[in-house]
Amino acid sequence: MAVADIDHLIGLIARLPGLGPRSARRVALALLRDPQRRMLPLARAMESAALSVKTCSFCGNLDVSDPCRICSDPDRLHDVVCVVENVSDLWALERAGAHRGVYQVLGGVLSALRGVGPEDLNVASLFERLKDGSVKEVILALGATVEGATTMYWLQERIMPFGVIVTRVAQGVPMGGALDVLDDGTLAAAVSSRRLL
Amino acid sequence: MAVADIDHLIGLIARLPGLGPRSARRVALALLRDPQRRMLPLARAMESAALSVKTCSFCGNLDVSDPCRICSDPDRLHDVVCVVENVSDLWALERAGAHRGVYQVLGGVLSALRGVGPEDLNVASLFERLKDGSVKEVILALGATVEGATTMYWLQERIMPFGVIVTRVAQGVPMGGALDVLDDGTLAAAVSSRRLL
Repeated sequence: MAVADIDHLIGLIARLPGLGPRSARRVALALLRDPQRRMLPLARAMESAALSVKTCSFCGNLDVSDPCRICSDPDRLHDVVCVVENVSDLWALERAGAHRGVYQVLGGVLSALRGVGPEDLNVASLFERLKDGSVKEVILALGATVEGATTMYWLQERIMPFGVIVTRVAQGVPMGGALDVLDDGTLAAAVSSRRLL
Repeated sequence: MAVADIDHLIGLIARLPGLGPRSARRVALALLRDPQRRMLPLARAMESAALSVKTCSFCGNLDVSDPCRICSDPDRLHDVVCVVENVSDLWALERAGAHRGVYQVLGGVLSALRGVGPEDLNVASLFERLKDGSVKEVILALGATVEGATTMYWLQERIMPFGVIVTRVAQGVPMGGALDVLDDGTLAAAVSSRRLL
């Protein structure tokens, strides 16, 4: 292929998260070496995904159907909404099978630094659900960062009035984690929220 | 999109060199977030590349034309052939503008371990070029590994009889490299091949 085309492909690959020019060249070459069995299937999978992906108008999840398969699944607990920052968090919780309810994907957290205000968060559909009284509990599963905490506080303030239980995921020592490598904040949280055995 | 489709896409991405399931999910998500501006262009670039890429029957380079643009470039020195292991090495030398001649991409190096024999190397076209006496010098630019050295020795043995100059790229201290972090082999090579100033 024309060197320009190669560079175009490498440039597109290099823009992917976690990849640089170097790894992009390695990836491009691996694909070019086996166009039929590696590059074409990937290209086709991407194209079909790009053409079929939708954002769920209820929770903000990515799926081919709107509402997404989680929101349209009768076996999920639709009165327990887990609020996450991104779809990746939703995926992580689904992989862990940690949540049997539905989700609300904010698409970000409040950040004065990055200029992310309440109007930038996907919360309207959450408040809709709260208004019609179909929600019993809202689980706040945002990162334990300043911005995550700010966002959780902001949400709590606005959800409380609906008379809905608002909880947040526990902080503590990660599974298989050694205490001596943990930051003070996590250790403090782990101790203060200790459980009786 | 169906979770199975997502997993299919992630699975394909995860098989790329340097990517694992985790980074593949990150990449897939970044693409899914912006299908029109990120996923489709990449998919199309891959498809067109996959359909147009050819292996140059002269040197083994990857290009849309056969012979490749290097072999068909009248301004290159066609009597100076640089032997490299992979197309990635060819790209590196081209980026560096280090070689003004043509190439021979072996597609590997001799390896008893990985069961790579002479029959697995792309050398036939090299010996063809040597036979018709159109080659003045063969530069061996293989990695400074046991396998690379074995392959260079094997090639030297077979190229010498054609009365062609056989050279190998110099070994030594890399540009901007500190001596104290270099391995003994490199240091020994750097000293033994020292130059008068």
